[in-house]
Amino acid sequence: MIAEIISVGNELLIGKTVNTNAAWLARKLTILGFNVKRITVVPDDEDSIVSEVKASIGRGSKLIVMTGGLGPTFDDKTSESLAKALGRRWVINEEAYRMVKLKYERKGLPLTEHRVKMAKMPENAKPIPNPTGTAPGIYIEHGNTIIIALPGVPSEMKEMFEKYVEPKLKNLVKNRYFVESKIIVKGIPESTIAPIIDKVVKSEPLVYVKSHPKGLELEKPVIELHLYTSDSSREAALERLRKVKELLRKEILNFTGEFIEE
Amino acid sequence: MIAEIISVGNELLIGKTVNTNAAWLARKLTILGFNVKRITVVPDDEDSIVSEVKASIGRGSKLIVMTGGLGPTFDDKTSESLAKALGRRWVINEEAYRMVKLKYERKGLPLTEHRVKMAKMPENAKPIPNPTGTAPGIYIEHGNTIIIALPGVPSEMKEMFEKYVEPKLKNLVKNRYFVESKIIVKGIPESTIAPIIDKVVKSEPLVYVKSHPKGLELEKPVIELHLYTSDSSREAALERLRKVKELLRKEILNFTGEFIEE
Repeated sequence: MIAEIISVGNELLIGKTVNTNAAWLARKLTILGFNVKRITVVPDDEDSIVSEVKASIGRGSKLIVMTGGLGPTFDDKTSESLAKALGRRWVINEEAYRMVKLKYERKGLPLTEHRVKMAKMPENAKPIPNPTGTAPGIYIEHGNTIIIALPGVPSEMKEMFEKYVEPKLKNLVKNRYFVESKIIVKGIPESTIAPIIDKVVKSEPLVYVKSHPKGLELEKPVIELHLYTSDSSREAALERLRKVKELLRKEILNFTGEFIEE
Repeated sequence: MIAEIISVGNELLIGKTVNTNAAWLARKLTILGFNVKRITVVPDDEDSIVSEVKASIGRGSKLIVMTGGLGPTFDDKTSESLAKALGRRWVINEEAYRMVKLKYERKGLPLTEHRVKMAKMPENAKPIPNPTGTAPGIYIEHGNTIIIALPGVPSEMKEMFEKYVEPKLKNLVKNRYFVESKIIVKGIPESTIAPIIDKVVKSEPLVYVKSHPKGLELEKPVIELHLYTSDSSREAALERLRKVKELLRKEILNFTGEFIEE
Protein backbone atom coordinates (compact mmCIF):
# COMPACT_ATOMS: atom_id res chain seq x y z
CA MET A 1 0.00 0.00 0.00
CA ILE A 2 1.98 2.95 -1.29
CA ALA A 3 1.19 6.38 0.13
CA GLU A 4 2.50 9.84 -0.67
CA ILE A 5 2.19 13.13 1.18
CA ILE A 6 1.92 16.41 -0.68
CA SER A 7 2.34 19.53 1.44
CA VAL A 8 1.15 22.75 -0.16
CA GLY A 9 2.49 26.08 1.03
CA ASN A 10 5.02 28.78 0.19
CA GLU A 11 5.77 29.18 3.90
CA LEU A 12 7.43 25.74 3.79
CA LEU A 13 9.50 26.69 0.74
CA ILE A 14 10.83 29.94 2.18
CA GLY A 15 11.76 28.12 5.38
CA LYS A 16 9.33 30.07 7.53
CA THR A 17 7.61 26.90 8.72
CA VAL A 18 9.08 23.47 9.50
CA ASN A 19 6.98 20.73 7.93
CA THR A 20 5.91 19.01 11.14
CA ASN A 21 2.61 18.05 9.49
CA ALA A 22 4.36 15.74 7.05
CA ALA A 23 6.34 14.00 9.79
CA TRP A 24 3.22 13.54 11.91
CA LEU A 25 1.26 12.12 8.98
CA ALA A 26 4.16 9.93 7.84
CA ARG A 27 4.30 8.39 11.31
CA LYS A 28 0.53 7.84 11.41
CA LEU A 29 0.45 6.28 7.94
CA THR A 30 3.45 4.05 8.65
CA ILE A 31 1.87 2.72 11.83
CA LEU A 32 -1.37 2.13 9.92
CA GLY A 33 0.63 -0.11 7.56
CA PHE A 34 1.21 2.21 4.60
CA ASN A 35 4.54 2.50 2.87
CA VAL A 36 5.15 6.24 2.57
CA LYS A 37 7.32 6.58 -0.51
CA ARG A 38 7.51 10.30 -0.96
CA ILE A 39 6.81 13.67 0.66
CA THR A 40 6.64 16.62 -1.69
CA VAL A 41 6.33 20.28 -0.80
CA VAL A 42 4.91 22.41 -3.58
CA PRO A 43 4.13 26.14 -3.70
CA ASP A 44 0.62 27.66 -3.58
CA ASP A 45 0.50 27.50 -7.30
CA GLU A 46 -2.06 25.68 -9.42
CA ASP A 47 0.33 24.23 -12.01
CA SER A 48 2.65 22.82 -9.34
CA ILE A 49 -0.20 21.19 -7.40
CA VAL A 50 -1.86 19.79 -10.52
CA SER A 51 1.34 18.28 -11.89
CA GLU A 52 2.35 16.77 -8.55
CA VAL A 53 -1.05 15.12 -7.98
CA LYS A 54 -0.95 13.70 -11.50
CA ALA A 55 2.63 12.49 -11.03
CA SER A 56 1.76 10.82 -7.73
CA ILE A 57 -1.18 8.96 -9.27
CA GLY A 58 1.14 8.01 -12.11
CA ARG A 59 3.61 6.54 -9.61
CA GLY A 60 0.86 4.20 -8.42
CA SER A 61 0.03 5.79 -5.06
CA LYS A 62 -2.91 4.10 -3.35
CA LEU A 63 -3.21 7.02 -0.99
CA ILE A 64 -2.32 10.68 -1.34
CA VAL A 65 -2.64 12.86 1.74
CA MET A 66 -2.41 16.58 1.11
CA THR A 67 -2.20 19.40 3.61
CA GLY A 68 -2.66 23.14 3.17
CA GLY A 69 -4.37 25.40 0.69
CA LEU A 70 -8.00 24.86 1.76
CA GLY A 71 -8.69 28.25 3.33
CA PRO A 72 -10.47 31.38 2.10
CA THR A 73 -7.54 33.43 0.76
CA PHE A 74 -6.49 34.00 -2.83
CA ASP A 75 -3.58 31.58 -2.58
CA ASP A 76 -5.58 28.64 -1.22
CA LYS A 77 -5.65 26.58 -4.39
CA THR A 78 -5.60 22.94 -3.36
CA SER A 79 -9.27 22.18 -4.00
CA GLU A 80 -9.48 23.82 -7.41
CA SER A 81 -6.15 22.30 -8.46
CA LEU A 82 -7.33 18.86 -7.37
CA ALA A 83 -10.40 19.22 -9.59
CA LYS A 84 -8.16 20.14 -12.49
CA ALA A 85 -5.71 17.30 -11.84
CA LEU A 86 -8.53 14.75 -11.72
CA GLY A 87 -10.46 16.18 -14.65
CA ARG A 88 -13.50 16.92 -12.50
CA ARG A 89 -15.65 20.00 -12.30
CA TRP A 90 -15.06 22.29 -9.32
CA VAL A 91 -18.47 22.76 -7.74
CA ILE A 92 -20.18 23.74 -4.53
CA ASN A 93 -20.45 20.57 -2.48
CA GLU A 94 -23.88 20.62 -0.82
CA GLU A 95 -22.74 18.84 2.33
CA ALA A 96 -19.68 21.06 2.69
CA TYR A 97 -21.84 24.11 2.03
CA ARG A 98 -24.12 23.17 4.92
CA MET A 99 -21.09 22.72 7.21
CA VAL A 100 -19.60 26.11 6.32
CA LYS A 101 -22.98 27.89 6.39
CA LEU A 102 -23.82 26.58 9.85
CA LYS A 103 -20.49 27.78 11.26
CA TYR A 104 -20.85 31.36 10.08
CA GLU A 105 -24.62 31.60 10.65
CA ARG A 106 -24.10 30.75 14.30
CA LYS A 107 -21.86 33.78 14.55
CA GLY A 108 -24.25 35.96 12.58
CA LEU A 109 -21.78 36.28 9.71
CA PRO A 110 -22.93 36.29 6.07
CA LEU A 111 -21.79 33.70 3.53
CA THR A 112 -19.42 35.78 1.43
CA GLU A 113 -17.76 34.58 -1.74
CA HIS A 114 -14.55 33.80 0.16
CA ARG A 115 -16.47 31.69 2.69
CA VAL A 116 -18.44 29.80 0.03
CA LYS A 117 -15.12 29.02 -1.65
CA MET A 118 -14.30 26.68 1.24
CA ALA A 119 -17.35 24.58 0.27
CA LYS A 120 -16.24 24.20 -3.36
CA MET A 121 -14.75 20.80 -4.12
CA PRO A 122 -14.06 18.50 -7.05
CA GLU A 123 -17.32 16.84 -8.17
CA ASN A 124 -18.22 13.71 -6.17
CA ALA A 125 -15.86 14.51 -3.32
CA LYS A 126 -16.90 13.88 0.28
CA PRO A 127 -16.25 16.67 2.77
CA ILE A 128 -14.40 15.82 5.99
CA PRO A 129 -15.78 17.75 8.98
CA ASN A 130 -13.51 20.32 10.60
CA PRO A 131 -14.55 20.56 14.27
CA THR A 132 -12.37 23.53 15.28
CA GLY A 133 -11.79 25.37 12.01
CA THR A 134 -14.09 26.26 9.16
CA ALA A 135 -12.64 24.74 5.97
CA PRO A 136 -13.81 21.12 5.54
CA GLY A 137 -11.32 18.53 4.32
CA ILE A 138 -11.76 16.65 1.05
CA TYR A 139 -12.06 12.89 0.51
CA ILE A 140 -11.96 11.55 -3.04
CA GLU A 141 -11.83 8.07 -4.49
CA HIS A 142 -10.30 8.29 -7.93
CA GLY A 143 -9.74 5.00 -9.72
CA ASN A 144 -7.48 3.03 -7.39
CA THR A 145 -6.30 6.08 -5.51
CA ILE A 146 -7.75 7.69 -2.41
CA ILE A 147 -6.98 11.38 -2.13
CA ILE A 148 -7.40 13.22 1.14
CA ALA A 149 -6.87 16.96 1.53
CA LEU A 150 -6.66 18.46 5.01
CA PRO A 151 -6.03 22.02 6.25
CA GLY A 152 -2.47 23.11 6.95
CA VAL A 153 -3.20 24.34 10.49
CA PRO A 154 -1.65 21.49 12.54
CA SER A 155 -4.33 21.35 15.25
CA GLU A 156 -7.16 21.15 12.70
CA MET A 157 -5.30 18.66 10.51
CA LYS A 158 -4.51 16.31 13.40
CA GLU A 159 -8.01 16.35 14.86
CA MET A 160 -9.61 15.68 11.47
CA PHE A 161 -7.16 12.91 10.68
CA GLU A 162 -7.70 11.13 13.98
CA LYS A 163 -11.47 11.55 14.07
CA TYR A 164 -12.44 10.94 10.45
CA VAL A 165 -9.55 9.75 8.31
CA GLU A 166 -7.77 7.22 10.52
CA PRO A 167 -10.85 5.01 11.12
CA LYS A 168 -11.48 4.85 7.36
CA LEU A 169 -7.85 3.97 6.56
CA LYS A 170 -7.77 1.33 9.29
CA ASN A 171 -10.40 -0.61 7.36
CA LEU A 172 -8.32 -0.29 4.24
CA VAL A 173 -5.07 -1.69 5.58
CA LYS A 174 -6.14 -4.55 7.78
CA ASN A 175 -3.66 -6.56 9.79
CA ARG A 176 -0.45 -4.76 9.06
CA TYR A 177 1.69 -4.22 12.11
CA PHE A 178 4.63 -1.88 12.22
CA VAL A 179 7.08 -2.55 15.05
CA GLU A 180 10.32 -0.81 15.87
CA SER A 181 13.14 -0.69 18.34
CA LYS A 182 16.17 1.41 19.12
CA ILE A 183 19.72 0.60 20.16
CA ILE A 184 22.35 3.11 21.19
CA VAL A 185 25.95 2.12 20.51
CA LYS A 186 28.65 4.17 22.15
CA GLY A 187 32.36 4.19 21.39
CA ILE A 188 32.31 2.57 17.93
CA PRO A 189 32.44 4.70 14.74
CA GLU A 190 29.57 4.31 12.24
CA SER A 191 32.03 3.16 9.60
CA THR A 192 32.98 0.25 11.87
CA ILE A 193 29.36 -0.70 12.43
CA ALA A 194 28.53 -0.41 8.72
CA PRO A 195 29.80 -3.89 7.71
CA ILE A 196 27.99 -5.40 10.71
CA ILE A 197 24.73 -3.86 9.54
CA ASP A 198 25.41 -5.18 6.04
CA LYS A 199 25.76 -8.69 7.43
CA VAL A 200 22.70 -8.50 9.69
CA VAL A 201 20.47 -6.97 7.03
CA LYS A 202 21.53 -9.65 4.56
CA SER A 203 20.57 -12.37 7.04
CA GLU A 204 17.18 -10.73 7.70
CA PRO A 205 16.22 -8.39 4.84
CA LEU A 206 12.73 -7.77 6.25
CA VAL A 207 14.12 -5.81 9.15
CA TYR A 208 15.38 -2.39 8.21
CA VAL A 209 18.37 -1.27 10.26
CA LYS A 210 19.22 2.39 9.93
CA SER A 211 22.14 4.03 11.69
CA HIS A 212 21.85 7.60 12.91
CA PRO A 213 25.13 9.19 14.00
CA LYS A 214 24.45 11.28 17.08
CA GLY A 215 27.96 12.02 18.27
CA LEU A 216 31.28 12.62 16.55
CA GLU A 217 32.37 9.74 14.29
CA LEU A 218 36.00 9.92 15.36
CA GLU A 219 36.10 11.70 18.69
CA LYS A 220 33.07 10.42 20.55
CA PRO A 221 30.99 8.12 18.42
CA VAL A 222 27.36 7.60 19.44
CA ILE A 223 25.22 5.71 16.97
CA GLU A 224 21.50 5.21 17.26
CA LEU A 225 20.42 2.10 15.42
CA HIS A 226 16.76 2.22 14.52
CA LEU A 227 15.26 -1.19 13.67
CA TYR A 228 11.85 -1.70 12.16
CA THR A 229 9.74 -4.19 10.30
CA SER A 230 6.08 -4.83 9.57
CA ASP A 231 4.03 -7.96 9.18
CA SER A 232 0.46 -9.25 9.08
CA SER A 233 1.25 -10.96 12.38
CA ARG A 234 2.38 -8.74 15.21
CA GLU A 235 4.08 -11.67 16.92
CA ALA A 236 6.05 -12.57 13.77
CA ALA A 237 7.16 -8.97 13.41
CA LEU A 238 8.26 -8.74 17.04
CA GLU A 239 10.10 -12.06 16.85
CA ARG A 240 11.96 -10.93 13.74
CA LEU A 241 12.94 -7.72 15.46
CA ARG A 242 14.14 -9.62 18.55
CA LYS A 243 16.35 -11.90 16.45
CA VAL A 244 18.01 -9.01 14.63
CA LYS A 245 18.59 -7.17 17.87
CA GLU A 246 20.24 -10.27 19.34
CA LEU A 247 22.43 -10.67 16.27
CA LEU A 248 23.45 -7.02 16.39
CA ARG A 249 24.30 -7.29 20.06
CA LYS A 250 26.48 -10.34 19.48
CA GLU A 251 28.34 -8.74 16.57
CA ILE A 252 28.75 -5.33 18.20
CA LEU A 253 29.97 -6.71 21.52
CA ASN A 254 32.99 -8.11 19.68
CA PHE A 255 34.11 -4.50 19.62
CA THR A 256 34.87 -2.50 22.72
CA GLY A 257 31.67 -0.51 22.64
CA GLU A 258 28.67 0.01 24.79
CA PHE A 259 25.36 -1.48 23.69
CA ILE A 260 22.27 0.11 25.17
CA GLU A 261 18.82 -1.22 24.35
CA GLU A 262 15.90 1.19 24.35
CA MET B 1 17.14 31.38 -9.94
CA ILE B 2 15.10 28.28 -9.24
CA ALA B 3 16.31 25.92 -6.52
CA GLU B 4 15.04 22.58 -5.27
CA ILE B 5 15.84 20.61 -2.16
CA ILE B 6 15.94 16.82 -2.20
CA SER B 7 16.07 15.14 1.20
CA VAL B 8 17.09 11.50 1.18
CA GLY B 9 16.16 9.24 4.08
CA ASN B 10 13.65 6.60 5.14
CA GLU B 11 13.63 8.11 8.64
CA LEU B 12 11.81 11.12 7.18
CA LEU B 13 9.25 8.92 5.43
CA ILE B 14 8.37 6.86 8.50
CA GLY B 15 7.99 10.05 10.51
CA LYS B 16 10.85 9.28 12.85
CA THR B 17 12.61 12.52 11.99
CA VAL B 18 11.15 15.95 11.25
CA ASN B 19 12.78 17.49 8.19
CA THR B 20 14.35 20.50 9.90
CA ASN B 21 17.24 20.37 7.40
CA ALA B 22 14.95 21.29 4.51
CA ALA B 23 13.43 24.23 6.40
CA TRP B 24 16.85 25.50 7.40
CA LEU B 25 18.17 25.22 3.84
CA ALA B 26 15.01 26.73 2.34
CA ARG B 27 15.43 29.76 4.58
CA LYS B 28 19.11 30.12 3.71
CA LEU B 29 18.49 29.77 -0.04
CA THR B 30 15.56 32.22 0.04
CA ILE B 31 17.63 34.85 1.80
CA LEU B 32 20.44 34.27 -0.71
CA GLY B 33 17.92 35.16 -3.43
CA PHE B 34 16.91 31.74 -4.73
CA ASN B 35 13.33 30.81 -5.44
CA VAL B 36 12.87 27.43 -3.77
CA LYS B 37 10.18 25.73 -5.83
CA ARG B 38 10.09 22.28 -4.36
CA ILE B 39 11.24 20.11 -1.49
CA THR B 40 11.12 16.38 -2.08
CA VAL B 41 11.77 13.61 0.41
CA VAL B 42 12.75 10.32 -1.21
CA PRO B 43 13.68 6.98 0.36
CA ASP B 44 17.21 5.53 0.55
CA ASP B 45 16.63 3.86 -2.75
CA GLU B 46 18.66 4.30 -5.91
CA ASP B 47 15.77 4.41 -8.37
CA SER B 48 13.92 7.06 -6.35
CA ILE B 49 16.99 9.28 -6.02
CA VAL B 50 17.98 8.90 -9.67
CA SER B 51 14.51 9.71 -10.97
CA GLU B 52 14.07 12.71 -8.67
CA VAL B 53 17.42 14.25 -9.62
CA LYS B 54 16.60 13.79 -13.30
CA ALA B 55 13.12 15.25 -12.82
CA SER B 56 14.51 18.25 -10.97
CA ILE B 57 17.01 18.99 -13.74
CA GLY B 58 14.15 18.55 -16.20
CA ARG B 59 12.14 21.17 -14.30
CA GLY B 60 14.93 23.66 -14.94
CA SER B 61 16.46 23.87 -11.46
CA LYS B 62 19.57 26.04 -11.38
CA LEU B 63 20.45 24.62 -8.00
CA ILE B 64 19.69 21.29 -6.35
CA VAL B 65 20.68 20.86 -2.72
CA MET B 66 20.52 17.32 -1.40
CA THR B 67 20.92 16.08 2.16
CA GLY B 68 21.47 12.60 3.50
CA GLY B 69 22.80 9.33 2.17
CA LEU B 70 26.53 10.15 2.14
CA GLY B 71 27.64 7.91 4.99
CA PRO B 72 29.32 4.51 5.13
CA THR B 73 26.29 2.22 5.54
CA PHE B 74 24.63 0.01 2.94
CA ASP B 75 21.70 2.40 2.52
CA ASP B 76 23.79 5.53 1.88
CA LYS B 77 23.17 5.78 -1.85
CA THR B 78 23.13 9.46 -2.73
CA SER B 79 26.58 9.62 -4.32
CA GLU B 80 26.22 6.52 -6.47
CA SER B 81 22.68 7.51 -7.50
CA LEU B 82 23.89 10.98 -8.46
CA ALA B 83 26.51 9.44 -10.74
CA LYS B 84 23.82 7.33 -12.36
CA ALA B 85 21.38 10.24 -12.74
CA LEU B 86 24.05 12.39 -14.40
CA GLY B 87 25.47 9.61 -16.57
CA ARG B 88 28.89 9.88 -14.93
CA ARG B 89 31.19 7.18 -13.65
CA TRP B 90 31.28 6.66 -9.88
CA VAL B 91 34.93 6.84 -8.95
CA ILE B 92 37.25 7.47 -6.04
CA ASN B 93 37.75 11.22 -5.87
CA GLU B 94 41.43 11.80 -5.07
CA GLU B 95 40.82 14.95 -3.04
CA ALA B 96 37.97 13.35 -1.08
CA TYR B 97 40.11 10.26 -0.56
CA ARG B 98 42.84 12.36 1.03
CA MET B 99 40.28 14.01 3.31
CA VAL B 100 38.81 10.71 4.48
CA LYS B 101 42.21 9.03 4.78
CA LEU B 102 43.63 11.80 6.94
CA LYS B 103 40.69 11.62 9.35
CA TYR B 104 41.00 7.90 10.00
CA GLU B 105 44.80 7.77 9.93
CA ARG B 106 44.93 10.31 12.73
CA LYS B 107 42.91 7.90 14.83
CA GLY B 108 45.02 4.93 13.76
CA LEU B 109 42.09 3.37 11.91
CA PRO B 110 42.53 1.53 8.60
CA LEU B 111 40.80 2.62 5.38
CA THR B 112 38.20 -0.11 5.05
CA GLU B 113 35.91 -0.53 2.05
CA HIS B 114 33.08 1.25 3.90
CA ARG B 115 35.34 4.21 4.67
CA VAL B 116 36.69 4.47 1.12
CA LYS B 117 33.08 4.51 -0.07
CA MET B 118 32.70 8.00 1.40
CA ALA B 119 35.41 9.20 -1.01
CA LYS B 120 33.64 7.84 -4.08
CA MET B 121 31.87 10.49 -6.14
CA PRO B 122 30.54 11.14 -9.61
CA GLU B 123 33.44 11.87 -11.97
CA ASN B 124 34.56 15.52 -11.96
CA ALA B 125 32.81 16.32 -8.69
CA LYS B 126 34.46 18.58 -6.12
CA PRO B 127 34.42 17.37 -2.52
CA ILE B 128 33.15 19.76 0.17
CA PRO B 129 35.18 19.46 3.39
CA ASN B 130 33.37 18.12 6.45
CA PRO B 131 35.07 19.65 9.51
CA THR B 132 33.27 17.66 12.22
CA GLY B 133 32.19 14.49 10.43
CA THR B 134 33.95 12.21 8.00
CA ALA B 135 31.86 12.07 4.80
CA PRO B 136 32.75 14.96 2.46
CA GLY B 137 29.96 16.74 0.61
CA ILE B 138 29.69 16.78 -3.16
CA TYR B 139 29.71 19.77 -5.50
CA ILE B 140 28.89 19.24 -9.17
CA GLU B 141 28.32 21.57 -12.07
CA HIS B 142 26.19 19.80 -14.62
CA GLY B 143 25.14 21.82 -17.65
CA ASN B 144 23.27 24.78 -16.19
CA THR B 145 22.60 23.08 -12.88
CA ILE B 146 24.68 23.12 -9.71
CA ILE B 147 24.15 20.06 -7.55
CA ILE B 148 25.26 20.03 -3.94
CA ALA B 149 25.00 16.98 -1.69
CA LEU B 150 25.50 17.38 2.06
CA PRO B 151 25.29 14.91 4.95
CA GLY B 152 21.98 14.45 6.76
CA VAL B 153 23.42 15.08 10.23
CA PRO B 154 22.15 18.64 10.87
CA SER B 155 25.27 19.96 12.63
CA GLU B 156 27.56 18.74 9.82
CA MET B 157 25.20 19.94 7.10
CA LYS B 158 24.86 23.43 8.57
CA GLU B 159 28.57 23.93 9.19
CA MET B 160 29.48 22.78 5.67
CA PHE B 161 26.79 24.95 4.11
CA GLU B 162 27.84 28.08 5.95
CA LYS B 163 31.58 27.56 5.54
CA TYR B 164 31.82 26.30 1.97
CA VAL B 165 28.53 26.46 0.10
CA GLU B 166 27.07 29.82 1.07
CA PRO B 167 30.10 31.88 -0.06
CA LYS B 168 30.01 30.15 -3.46
CA LEU B 169 26.27 30.71 -3.88
CA LYS B 170 26.55 34.35 -2.84
CA ASN B 171 28.69 35.00 -5.91
CA LEU B 172 26.08 33.28 -8.03
CA VAL B 173 23.05 35.32 -6.97
CA LYS B 174 24.36 38.82 -6.68
CA ASN B 175 22.21 41.71 -5.53
CA ARG B 176 19.03 39.91 -4.67
CA TYR B 177 17.52 41.04 -1.40
CA PHE B 178 14.77 39.19 0.40
CA VAL B 179 12.87 41.29 2.94
CA GLU B 180 9.92 40.33 5.09
CA SER B 181 7.62 41.58 7.79
CA LYS B 182 4.88 40.29 10.04
CA ILE B 183 1.56 41.67 11.19
CA ILE B 184 -0.70 40.12 13.79
CA VAL B 185 -4.41 40.80 13.39
CA LYS B 186 -6.64 39.95 16.32
CA GLY B 187 -10.42 39.75 16.36
CA ILE B 188 -11.11 39.46 12.62
CA PRO B 189 -11.72 36.06 10.96
CA GLU B 190 -9.39 35.02 8.11
CA SER B 191 -12.35 34.86 5.74
CA THR B 192 -13.01 38.55 6.45
CA ILE B 193 -9.40 39.48 5.78
CA ALA B 194 -9.26 37.36 2.60
CA PRO B 195 -10.87 39.97 0.28
CA ILE B 196 -8.62 42.66 1.77
CA ILE B 197 -5.56 40.60 0.91
CA ASP B 198 -6.94 40.08 -2.60
CA LYS B 199 -7.20 43.83 -3.05
CA VAL B 200 -3.77 44.62 -1.61
CA VAL B 201 -2.00 41.88 -3.55
CA LYS B 202 -3.64 43.07 -6.76
CA SER B 203 -2.36 46.59 -6.15
CA GLU B 204 1.17 45.33 -5.44
CA PRO B 205 1.68 41.84 -6.90
CA LEU B 206 5.40 41.82 -6.06
CA VAL B 207 4.69 41.59 -2.35
CA TYR B 208 3.44 38.21 -1.25
CA VAL B 209 0.95 38.38 1.61
CA LYS B 210 0.24 35.08 3.28
CA SER B 211 -2.22 34.65 6.11
CA HIS B 212 -1.53 32.12 8.84
CA PRO B 213 -4.48 31.43 11.15
CA LYS B 214 -3.12 31.08 14.68
CA GLY B 215 -6.30 31.18 16.71
CA LEU B 216 -9.85 29.98 16.13
CA GLU B 217 -11.50 31.42 13.01
CA LEU B 218 -14.86 31.97 14.68
CA GLU B 219 -14.25 32.05 18.41
CA LYS B 220 -11.00 33.93 18.81
CA PRO B 221 -9.44 34.79 15.48
CA VAL B 222 -5.73 35.58 15.44
CA ILE B 223 -4.17 35.93 12.00
CA GLU B 224 -0.50 36.30 11.31
CA LEU B 225 0.07 38.07 8.02
CA HIS B 226 3.50 37.36 6.63
CA LEU B 227 4.64 39.81 3.95
CA TYR B 228 7.69 39.37 1.79
CA THR B 229 9.29 40.52 -1.41
CA SER B 230 12.69 40.56 -3.04
CA ASP B 231 14.48 42.96 -5.30
CA SER B 232 17.89 43.88 -6.67
CA SER B 233 17.65 47.01 -4.55
CA ARG B 234 17.19 46.55 -0.85
CA GLU B 235 15.69 49.99 -0.52
CA ALA B 236 13.13 49.34 -3.25
CA ALA B 237 12.15 46.08 -1.59
CA LEU B 238 11.75 47.71 1.82
CA GLU B 239 9.76 50.60 0.38
CA ARG B 240 7.39 48.18 -1.38
CA LEU B 241 6.92 46.27 1.85
CA ARG B 242 6.24 49.50 3.77
CA LYS B 243 3.56 50.58 1.30
CA VAL B 244 1.74 47.26 1.46
CA LYS B 245 1.85 47.28 5.24
CA GLU B 246 0.36 50.77 5.28
CA LEU B 247 -2.38 49.71 2.87
CA LEU B 248 -3.17 46.64 4.97
CA ARG B 249 -3.32 48.71 8.13
CA LYS B 250 -5.75 51.18 6.55
CA GLU B 251 -8.02 48.46 5.21
CA ILE B 252 -7.98 46.33 8.31
CA LEU B 253 -8.60 49.20 10.71
CA ASN B 254 -11.99 49.67 9.02
CA PHE B 255 -12.94 46.55 10.93
CA THR B 256 -13.02 46.36 14.70
CA GLY B 257 -9.81 44.44 14.99
CA GLU B 258 -6.41 44.88 16.52
CA PHE B 259 -3.46 45.49 14.22
CA ILE B 260 -0.06 44.69 15.69
CA GLU B 261 3.10 45.28 13.71
CA GLU B 262 6.08 43.05 14.36
